[in-house]
Order: sequence, then C-alpha cells, then structure tokens
Amino acid sequence: MTTPSEPWDARAAHAPSPALLTDRYELTMLQAALRDGTAHRRCVFEVFTRRLPAGRRYGVVAGTGRVLEELTRFRFGRAELDWLADERVVDDATLTFLADYRFTGSMVGYAEGEVFFPSSPVLVVEGTFAEAVLLETFVLSVLNYDSAVASAASRMTSAAVDRPCLEMGSRRAHEWAGVAAARAAAVAGFAGTSNLEAGRRYGLATIGTAAHAFTLLHDDERAAFDAQVAASGTGTTLLVDTYDVRTGVEHALAAAGTGLGAVRLDSGDLGALAHEVRAQLDAAGATGTRITVTSDLDEYAIAALAVAPVDSYGVGTSLVTGSGAPTCGMVYKLVARESSDGVLTPVAKASRSKTSVGGRKAAARRLVDGRAVEEVLVTGPDDAVRTWAPDGRPDDEHGALRALHVPLVTDGVVDDRWTGAQGVRTAARRHHDSRAELPRGARRLSADEAALPTVPLVLEV
Amino acid sequence: MTTPSEPWDARAAHAPSPALLTDRYELTMLQAALRDGTAHRRCVFEVFTRRLPAGRRYGVVAGTGRVLEELTRFRFGRAELDWLADERVVDDATLTFLADYRFTGSMVGYAEGEVFFPSSPVLVVEGTFAEAVLLETFVLSVLNYDSAVASAASRMTSAAVDRPCLEMGSRRAHEWAGVAAARAAAVAGFAGTSNLEAGRRYGLATIGTAAHAFTLLHDDERAAFDAQVAASGTGTTLLVDTYDVRTGVEHALAAAGTGLGAVRLDSGDLGALAHEVRAQLDAAGATGTRITVTSDLDEYAIAALAVAPVDSYGVGTSLVTGSGAPTCGMVYKLVARESSDGVLTPVAKASRSKTSVGGRKAAARRLVDGRAVEEVLVTGPDDAVRTWAPDGRPDDEHGALRALHVPLVTDGVVDDRWTGAQGVRTAARRHHDSRAELPRGARRLSADEAALPTVPLVLEV
Repeated sequence: MTTPSEPWDARAAHAPSPALLTDRYELTMLQAALRDGTAHRRCVFEVFTRRLPAGRRYGVVAGTGRVLEELTRFRFGRAELDWLADERVVDDATLTFLADYRFTGSMVGYAEGEVFFPSSPVLVVEGTFAEAVLLETFVLSVLNYDSAVASAASRMTSAAVDRPCLEMGSRRAHEWAGVAAARAAAVAGFAGTSNLEAGRRYGLATIGTAAHAFTLLHDDERAAFDAQVAASGTGTTLLVDTYDVRTGVEHALAAAGTGLGAVRLDSGDLGALAHEVRAQLDAAGATGTRITVTSDLDEYAIAALAVAPVDSYGVGTSLVTGSGAPTCGMVYKLVARESSDGVLTPVAKASRSKTSVGGRKAAARRLVDGRAVEEVLVTGPDDAVRTWAPDGRPDDEHGALRALHVPLVTDGVVDDRWTGAQGVRTAARRHHDSRAELPRGARRLSADEAALPTVPLVLEV
Repeated sequence: MTTPSEPWDARAAHAPSPALLTDRYELTMLQAALRDGTAHRRCVFEVFTRRLPAGRRYGVVAGTGRVLEELTRFRFGRAELDWLADERVVDDATLTFLADYRFTGSMVGYAEGEVFFPSSPVLVVEGTFAEAVLLETFVLSVLNYDSAVASAASRMTSAAVDRPCLEMGSRRAHEWAGVAAARAAAVAGFAGTSNLEAGRRYGLATIGTAAHAFTLLHDDERAAFDAQVAASGTGTTLLVDTYDVRTGVEHALAAAGTGLGAVRLDSGDLGALAHEVRAQLDAAGATGTRITVTSDLDEYAIAALAVAPVDSYGVGTSLVTGSGAPTCGMVYKLVARESSDGVLTPVAKASRSKTSVGGRKAAARRLVDGRAVEEVLVTGPDDAVRTWAPDGRPDDEHGALRALHVPLVTDGVVDDRWTGAQGVRTAARRHHDSRAELPRGARRLSADEAALPTVPLVLEV
C-alpha cells in the first residue's frame, strides 16, 4: 500500500470534491438516523444488478478503481457545508457529523474487469449506516456508467478478434464521462483512445491524426496531405474520404509514398471500400499501409467487417452509450444491519415487487477443466459468509471454485493495487482472463440468456 | 456583461481545466496547420445534427450555458503542457501556441432551451482554425449529452401536463453527467432534482427524503417513520412500499397524522396502487396528502398514469439516458474558411455519404398566428447571412419570422446572460415558450416525422 506516483494523482488534488454528487435523501436519512441513534448501527450494503440488458450474456465490472481513487476525497469541505447550511438541507448536528466525515469502513468486491451476472454481489460495503449510506449515489454512478461501457466494449473486442479497437467517442458523451469511457474501454481490451485526459490520467495510448476539417481547411486535398506528412511523418494516418476515395488514396500515396502508415475511411460502405482501397494500395506497392475504419461502428458492424481487409476499428457513439444499454441498473441495497440487540441481521424489501435476498453474500465461479460453468452465490450466517473461502481442492469432477471477492478497502484504507494506471492494467488482464474462461459461445453477439447460471451455496451454521 | 456572483462560479475555480477533454487529432491538426500557416485562416464551424432520433418530433438545445461557463477556463496550464511535451503529442511550436491559447473568436447559436430540427445550425463558431478546432470535442460532448437529456425531459414534462416532474437519475449516469442531467431536465421544465451538486451550482430546488434502506435500518417500519417525522416534520414524504403498502400507509398516518405531506410508491403497479392509496388516505381524512411515484418511469409510463391520482413523478434512468436516445449525434463541421486569397469560402465534404451543405447559415422560425410552421435555413453570401435579420413585418398570410441565433460570445467575451443559475432560468422560459408555439400534435409521444419542415431561404448577392 504505497502512494502511487501516477498521473491521476496530481490531477485529483485539483478536482472538486465528489461529496455533493449525492442524492439529497442520503443526507435527510442521515439526519433522522443521527437523531434516533440508528446512524451508528453496523450495516452491510451490496451492489448488484437484478438483470442483464436484454440479450446480453454477461456484464463487465468497471469503475471500481475510480470509486477507490475518489473515496479518500469524499469529504465535506467548508464550501459544501456552507451551502448545506444555507439551504437548510440538514440540521447543525448533521453538519457537524459531515464536517468530520470520512469512510472508515471496508469494501470487498469483484476485481475490476471481472465478468458478472444477475445478482452477482459486485461490491459489498460495510460500515455504520451513516458512513455507508452517503456513498450510494456516487458509487452507483461510477459503477453503472463505467460497467455499461466496459460491457459493450467487451463485445466489440470479442467481435474484432485480434484487430485493435480504438476508442473515439468522447464527443458523444458528457465531457467527463468521455474520460471514464476511455478508461472502461481499456479495461475491456481497447488498444487506445482519442481522449487526451484519459491518456494523461490512466496512462493509455492516445491516437488520432486529422479530421475532414483539416482537408477542407486547405486549398486542395493534396496540400492537406503534404502538410500532415510534413508535420507527422509518413507513418501518419491520412483520412481519404473527404472527396473521392480513389483519388484520395492517390493523393495520399503521392504525399507519403508507399511507406504511408495508414489510411482512414469514415463514411460509405466500409466493407466494399476497404476491399477497393486494399487493392489500390497493394497495386501501388503500399502493401504495408494499413486501413482503419471509423463510421458509427458497433459490435455487429465490427463482426460484419471480419472478412474485409481492415486493420483496426475506431468506435465512438455506440461504445460510450453502452451499445443500447447506457447504464447497468446496479442498485445499492442494505442487506444486513445491527439490530437493537447488537446482532447483525439480514434485511430485505418484501413488498409485491423489486424484492431482494437479504444477508451478506460471497461469490465464486465454478470451473471445470478451466472452463466456467456456474456463478455461485454464497449465503448463510454472516460470519461464515464473511470468512468463506473455497476449499482449495484441485479440480475434480465437480470442478474447482474461484473466489470472486477481493479486498478493496480495509478499515478506510484503500488498496492501491486497483487505482491509477496500474489499476487499469490489472483490470484489463483480469477481464482478458475472466472472459477467456467463459463457456464456448458466451461471446456470441446474438441475444441469449446469461452465459452462466447463478446457483446458491448455503453455508451451515 | 457582469461577473455573476452565482454558485457555479466559486466552484469552477477549483475544477480541473477542460483543455484536455479533447481528441488528440485536434492537436495534431493544429501542429500541421501551424507549420504551413493555415492555422491562422479565419474559419466558420457549425454544430448541427443530421437527423433526430427515430420517431422524435423535435430536439431541445441544452448545454450552451455550460459551454460558455467553461470556455474561459479552456486554457492549457503547466500540468497539461508538461504532459503533452512528455508524451510528444505535439512539437515545441505547438506547445508555445497552446500556452497562450484562449478563444478570442465569436459564437452565435440557438438560445438554450430552443427546440431544433435536422440541420438546425444550433451553434456557429467563428475564429481562426487554430482557436476554433480545439473546441470541437468539448463543445460536442456538452451539447450532445445535455441536449439528449433535455430532449427526453421535454417529452416527460409534456406527458405530465401540470404535474411536477422531479429528476432523480444521478445514480444511473456518470457522476458528473448526473449534475448536467439535472440541469438539462430543469431547462425542459423539471421542477426539482435529487442531486445536491446540481442544486448548488445552478440554484435548482433539491428534493428527496428516504430510501428503503432507512426503513430496513430500523427494527420496524413504524419506528422508521417516527424517526423521519421527528427529524423532518409531518410535511415529509414517507416511502410506504418496503413491506405491505396498505400497512405502510397506516403506519405513515399513525406516525404523521392526516397532515402528512406525501407518500411515495417505488414499485408495483403504480396506477392501481395510486388509486388504492388515494382511497385509503381520503377515507382516513388525509385528503391533502400527496402521492408521488418513482419506479422506472419514462414519458410513456407518465402518460399512462394520467388518469391515476398521482401528484408528482420522480424520473431517473430513462431521463439521464435520453429515453432511448442517449446522445444527440450533433457534429462540428467546418463550413467556411479563408482561402489563400483571403476570401471566406464555403467548404463541405463531398464524397459518397455524410455530405454537408457548405457556407455559414442563419436560421429563423416562421410563425403564422403565433404558431410555428417552418424552420427556415438561411444561406447565401457570407456577409449577407452574417448580418441577416427578419424584416420585422407584422404577421401576414405568410407569417412572421423569428430569428433563432442569439449572440453568445463576441470576440472572446462571454455573454453572461446565458450562464449560471440565471442562464438555466432563462433557458427554461425559452423552452416553455418555444415548445408552446409548436404545431398542435408536436407534443404527441408516438413516433412521427419532425414537427416542422426545414425549408431554405437563399439570400441574393
């Protein structure tokens, strides 16, 4: 647990506090609970989703590192407290509590990058009601958005097989969501991003050379290409579809020679164009010049281009909007709390709909011959679940269990392995390995059930 | 043009610079254009969308005020420059330019809150290529997200007629997108938000009392309600669906009496439940107690509840994700630039697809008897378009033209009317008035064509 000297860290010092990225009801609940003493009851909150988006076979946890990076900054400063006082959001006793607030509890959860299924307890937050309830909105915002993007991104990198996917969707998302989207895409295997801030914060490779505006700025296309090659060298990528593509490729080769790095196609029938352009490049001897395509791609368009001579995919809108599922629907639910007798007791909403299973959960993935077959949801007495671990037996006919919860925060201390640029690299490896062990067919794009069934494992007292 | 003493201002001082919320290609284009001198050519960029989301009848411009608030902060500081240098994103000459960068150009555009249609020039940015090209990603991020939310929100406030809509979707969006979503919802007529930061920055009313967790925290529902009433008074809203709703309402009335402010329903068949709860409240004499509903509502669910005795709607997921259209697809296109002879010349992409109309545009709405009938797109010689204004004739059989462009930035100076809390209030009025003048039927939720046709008006030389 060292303080990492990584790019996001310097940045974070100047960022505004996330403490008011919070729904008002968290503060009004806090006030009422401080008054009657229940605020200090020990609680367990769980983050999970009731269902995957229609047709999706798995989800991908992302954002965990961002939650942890911001957690120590989740403090109420003078400016926040003054506003809450002026607006009479809460009373003086609550303001006093907030002034001293910091999260001193613990969190375990799925490692960032891990795949998840309905009911998977992707994050478990333990602390007093007061300290845990305040994090609800912030934690959900981060996990819901980042996981939505990573879940879509994983389908795209699956469809692209070995060809690199490049993130370029910042302009189609809220300006800071764009940074988070670039990071989440990297977790799910994207090779680079156009977003400079994401490059800076998370050590991601940044990409991009020119837009149509650059060609249009010049008196003609050849002048634009000459200027770009002069500034960026022949290894650059020239955008050849501002006017006629065939002429554009001619101009590109005239400007850069057959050592041209790549051409980009951003409109039209990309599959047919890629074949034509490949033939034109090869005929001119530019056999090493790559072709990148970028027009409104999603996982289906990427899959459809598998037979086209395309070298990389640039993905924008559909990535940053979750390709039809722009949020994950994760919820933050109280599943256990200390009763008046001091015993930690399972609780759950019990009306006609939106019911939940009370009590702390652990989780594991059952693997047979290294292949995942079940998501195992572990319930039972709180202490037994909290300390549960797979028995470590080698793989037999029932397979072996891989525990899914890792420690994230212990008594308020964040485990730095999961944060910063290092955290993104770790998450990308986890996602790669986690997806690789899914059953054959889990990566199919067509609509189907969750790739793994979720089964209970009930521990005895 | 005064410096407003509004909440966002103090906040903004501590926020990170938006300068790297930028795609890398903007900087590589800048570098190449600085080398060959084209960087200093005067340019006109235009923001527009090629189409509305399928079935939508109009869009709502939002985010303009946020663009303007951040524009003066769009500067490259030491930290940004050092990173760009370390990563060799651009050369030293470009870094020198960036160190001195500030936007000194001008912007006109649709007033925030105005409705728009395909091809509507919602923002026109004029400046050198160098200063205008750098804003592409940032401007699009803000307008695309905020307008997507406002466009969905307007359909919800239409469907709700006179009942208040309340925004509570922060947890289903990126944490800072949630703040922008609350603001955009207010532009489109929402009456309040759960998001505290949005309340602070934009002077919005904040709402919210308690979640199921608060009830589950307590030993029983009655204890929870007693605690809430003790802390917040009988005017509070009690959430009555943690266990049995009928019993919940009994407990609520026992805790608060018939002066109870409201009850909230967050699950189940909301229409049927609202009828049952209304009857129960009325029978108990709590005829003034309101009913608010909040479970996964969208504009269709709101419309379906029109006949139910519901007093307000809380909307989350579908609002912050644009109700099926999570981004607007606005683009930032170079439409005119100075040629080597110094003349401002229209330009446009001209390959097989994604073609655009070159040249600066102005826009107006034609009204007959106060009712909008056409979106008028004004083209022609640059000077004529730039100085064009409707002739001010009173409404005759051809109607009257209402000009749609307002000045936003003049020679780098932001017009403060559009920023801060004041800007949101102004935008909300504009949206109210703009939507009210649309043709009858434009507010129908069912899928249909754009509510107004867009027609050209070509100015003579």
